[in-house]
Amino acid sequence: MSKKPLILVTNDDGIVAPGIKALIDVAKEFGEVVVVAPDSPQSGKGHAITLNQPLRMRKVEMFENVESYECDGTPADCVKLAKNVLLKNRTIDLCVSGINHGSNASINILYSGTMSAAMEASLENINSIGFSLLDFTFSADFRGAQEVARSLIGNIINHGLKGTRLLNVNIPKLPVEDIKGVKVCTQASGMWIEDFQKGEDPRGEEYYWLSGKFVVDEEHKDTDIYWLNQGYASVVPSQHDLTHHESIPGLGYLEN
Amino acid sequence: MSKKPLILVTNDDGIVAPGIKALIDVAKEFGEVVVVAPDSPQSGKGHAITLNQPLRMRKVEMFENVESYECDGTPADCVKLAKNVLLKNRTIDLCVSGINHGSNASINILYSGTMSAAMEASLENINSIGFSLLDFTFSADFRGAQEVARSLIGNIINHGLKGTRLLNVNIPKLPVEDIKGVKVCTQASGMWIEDFQKGEDPRGEEYYWLSGKFVVDEEHKDTDIYWLNQGYASVVPSQHDLTHHESIPGLGYLEN
Repeated sequence: MSKKPLILVTNDDGIVAPGIKALIDVAKEFGEVVVVAPDSPQSGKGHAITLNQPLRMRKVEMFENVESYECDGTPADCVKLAKNVLLKNRTIDLCVSGINHGSNASINILYSGTMSAAMEASLENINSIGFSLLDFTFSADFRGAQEVARSLIGNIINHGLKGTRLLNVNIPKLPVEDIKGVKVCTQASGMWIEDFQKGEDPRGEEYYWLSGKFVVDEEHKDTDIYWLNQGYASVVPSQHDLTHHESIPGLGYLEN
Repeated sequence: MSKKPLILVTNDDGIVAPGIKALIDVAKEFGEVVVVAPDSPQSGKGHAITLNQPLRMRKVEMFENVESYECDGTPADCVKLAKNVLLKNRTIDLCVSGINHGSNASINILYSGTMSAAMEASLENINSIGFSLLDFTFSADFRGAQEVARSLIGNIINHGLKGTRLLNVNIPKLPVEDIKGVKVCTQASGMWIEDFQKGEDPRGEEYYWLSGKFVVDEEHKDTDIYWLNQGYASVVPSQHDLTHHESIPGLGYLEN
């Protein structure tokens, strides 16, 4: 690549989350960085977009030598605005989203604002990576995740992204020297066993608050959760075709 | 099936939208219906879930002889509450979501609250169908869509759902007698060519409002959009594994 690559950075934890700063610092090593990120936390927002109200975008001075904007929309909105308004006349070489505070492995890709931003970029034909660290805390140590991001972004800037436009990357909560490497693998099967905490608000009205634990199908190896448990970062090439092709031949009876 | 099937009905346009009434009326022909639906429109909410605040659920008297609740969460939240709170000790035989006012064909499944509700039910191992009519208007004529829903729900109640747990069903905007039939097919490739309307609010602040047109890859036949254009209802068996399996062997260079 002759000119400096243009890298769009976004996230779902909001522009003030430490994870996006960690990702910007790595992205800056590889090219020109533009940030468009939500002005408030958007965890669990899935692939939400804003249709019925206007969006605001505001330039902020937050990261040294990096053009940055905060937006009152969802992560997917941020990518749409970046692609179609801010950087309309330029080519975005790579979009990176995160580093998310918390896992987006297995089916959590479906709920993830981090991954929906990356998915949105991939739908616009931009190579795109979502990064998530398996540590929910605000004070998480991102050094291991930064090492993984540095290796993957470098590889993709130099060699391109083959066969897919979207990677779901998760990084174990380990000191940088204990991360064993990177594994390209599949999305694990799993499900949330939900529990709602029932309570009463100060006005005496009943509420339900989502909680639960994630149960993974341990039968399959070579999945993101399997490799994360072994101390590796997981890389799942992902896509937007949700068709379950295998079942089409057996569903002819629905046409009657 | 010996006992009366239990059918959960939800949507994303909100409990007062005419589309959900149209679907309830059909579902009632086949079993006991319980409704849990958002108390306000949730279009474009993707697979959003509510993590950081409590949810409210309120019993409403809206549909004759149908136990109904409105909830201030997203479509996926409604399904989680139904499965894990309201109907915790019962088996839900089928979840139907919609009838959505507007298309969820092609990649619009990713943005769709209607489909995320159905997806959520499928993640809980419940057979599930999302129905969408290609007519955005509040006053849409749902009779054709009801005919399609009647045929599919009947088929699934009688024969089960083979090979998949999730169907994305779209119905063309045609008089009931002009709908040619039902086709089981794949999700079309396509993308939104976005445009943001830039404006100024009454206080002089700049805003952007999403608009755009959908461009479909016409090369492939046997897709939902192809068959909708031919006057058929489309049925896409869908799933939650977003892994792009084909590209895994070629991505070994990312592990270095």
